[in-house]
Amino acid sequence: MRAAMYYGNNKLDIEDIPEPTPGEGQVKVKVSRNGICGTDLHEFYDGPIFIPPSDPHPLTGKAMPLVLGHEFSGVVTDLGAGVTDIDEGDRVTIEPLYRCGECRPCKSGHYNLCTVIGFHGLMADGGMAEYTVVPRNQIHVLPDSVSVEMGALVEPMSVAYHAAVLGAVGDQDSALIFGAGPIGIGLWFALRGMGLTEIDVVEPSPTRRQSIEKLGARTLDPTSQDVSALIADRTNGNGVDAAFDAAGVAPAVEAALECVGERRPLISVAIYDRPLPTPLINLVLRERRIQGTICYTSDDYRAVVDLMSRGHYDTTGWVDTIPLSGVVEQGFEPLRAGRKMKLLVDPTL
Amino acid sequence: MRAAMYYGNNKLDIEDIPEPTPGEGQVKVKVSRNGICGTDLHEFYDGPIFIPPSDPHPLTGKAMPLVLGHEFSGVVTDLGAGVTDIDEGDRVTIEPLYRCGECRPCKSGHYNLCTVIGFHGLMADGGMAEYTVVPRNQIHVLPDSVSVEMGALVEPMSVAYHAAVLGAVGDQDSALIFGAGPIGIGLWFALRGMGLTEIDVVEPSPTRRQSIEKLGARTLDPTSQDVSALIADRTNGNGVDAAFDAAGVAPAVEAALECVGERRPLISVAIYDRPLPTPLINLVLRERRIQGTICYTSDDYRAVVDLMSRGHYDTTGWVDTIPLSGVVEQGFEPLRAGRKMKLLVDPTL
Repeated sequence: MRAAMYYGNNKLDIEDIPEPTPGEGQVKVKVSRNGICGTDLHEFYDGPIFIPPSDPHPLTGKAMPLVLGHEFSGVVTDLGAGVTDIDEGDRVTIEPLYRCGECRPCKSGHYNLCTVIGFHGLMADGGMAEYTVVPRNQIHVLPDSVSVEMGALVEPMSVAYHAAVLGAVGDQDSALIFGAGPIGIGLWFALRGMGLTEIDVVEPSPTRRQSIEKLGARTLDPTSQDVSALIADRTNGNGVDAAFDAAGVAPAVEAALECVGERRPLISVAIYDRPLPTPLINLVLRERRIQGTICYTSDDYRAVVDLMSRGHYDTTGWVDTIPLSGVVEQGFEPLRAGRKMKLLVDPTL
Repeated sequence: MRAAMYYGNNKLDIEDIPEPTPGEGQVKVKVSRNGICGTDLHEFYDGPIFIPPSDPHPLTGKAMPLVLGHEFSGVVTDLGAGVTDIDEGDRVTIEPLYRCGECRPCKSGHYNLCTVIGFHGLMADGGMAEYTVVPRNQIHVLPDSVSVEMGALVEPMSVAYHAAVLGAVGDQDSALIFGAGPIGIGLWFALRGMGLTEIDVVEPSPTRRQSIEKLGARTLDPTSQDVSALIADRTNGNGVDAAFDAAGVAPAVEAALECVGERRPLISVAIYDRPLPTPLINLVLRERRIQGTICYTSDDYRAVVDLMSRGHYDTTGWVDTIPLSGVVEQGFEPLRAGRKMKLLVDPTL
């Protein structure tokens, strides 16, 4: 089968490798679509970062080289011994986390914070291939109404949904999202799915603003509008009930900490590459908080798939498909240059 | 009567002024002790900051000049019309907040976040005088077992207690306090009062470390010890259940965000004078949070007075008393120079 094999910094080959065979408790999946994530770009251009260069990962036993891809959907084609509760032919999305089950976070249900966490597609051969093999507990069956394109988006949409849950908002509450990339879009869908109608998305890029506006979102342009003053005016000085930073830059954090109401949270869902100057006094004076969030658990997957099955998500205008042979030239490069928002690899092309 | 009248930056006179008379709903208090707060130092050396220079405060109708002092205890000597539930001769501590009762925080019980908040001693004539007059709702009667020295400390100890509550810890949990000034000491007493035994206090000053050690605290010296490594070792890598920043400096915030466990809080109870470089990635990766906290409500006052009545607080080695005539020379100056930790003004001296 063909697969996108990662050999380290700037080294990725589309090559023929043997099809994997499911061991006990594992499931073989024919990959339908695999989304390219910012993490993949970091691994390719700046890595290896998460991918173990030589020492095998403790949960998967794998190190470089390995097949990339951790956001994917597919069809079950073979079942390993002991797997009895799913069927060949099931359409599935994969929750790509390996966890130890023994550390404090795992035992308390927060296995997204497992101290030895692994990812399918970073610490095991992933979804940028015709086939891959995953443990049974990574499988979520898709309802008929959810397409394989949507199925490949469940992973990033669950990152955003998990963040939205930490926002602790109700359907009458207001929210402010900084950044209209895939996670910002996912936050908007998640909050809408929770019933919120008062949502503004702050995004300096005109193309990203247009993109999310076409989905129905209300936007603010921080390069020409005074976001803090507008929000204060609109909320009678109370501020919004939750702010979300999916931008990861100092102006977003600063504005968010002016806009969020007393005892309300700023949810940080960005990968900050360095410490940002943060006006902590704005936390103190209004008893605000900054809450970090990362990944998801199966609860988030189920919630996103359920919302998708009820038509709450829309790929129009921000998701495109490319062939496996084009992962670098048609995938990483235009994403890195900001010419594309979200790309799904189709291994059959 | 004699009073410490604030006229603006570096201008404070001990002068004779008429005794105040309690109006309807007010109580006249003969001041026993009034603590000097960092806020008083800021007003004197850098202010006016909170004190209204000319426009009267909306809740008190007062502006400069006015009598300083918002941390005080005393004895009730006269009751205004309509005050029937306390008696002359009652020993009391004052919760010096004026609040509107109408804004969102007031209506939700968080009147410490009132949008037009005022303080007795900053927006009304305060406790650095022989007498003062306060609204009935600022009065808390002291049990016989709580001294007037303790009574004057209820205000700063309630700031710390309120912060400790936001730490959301149980008696089997561990905590880390950055800074051993009066608020750090108050955090230690509050957490001990909540039943915690695993508490470390991080403080670079040898004299402050010795001071809190004499009260029974365990300390760490960040100038010679690797706090993060020590805490990781002691907690099997889990981190502490809550960290408290009562230092307000970047190294404290950085170390705290390494030491606190997943999904646990860093409570910010410092007055940050500028944005600090904050490693927000440490929030994201472990779903930690930074929670701001300010002031207190009557719940905190009641809890602190109750703990004091059961002998949980101790003034040994960190609290001294000075006469009203020495507010600047024997008060502000040694506090500013770090030669004293906490000073109480006795207006009868």
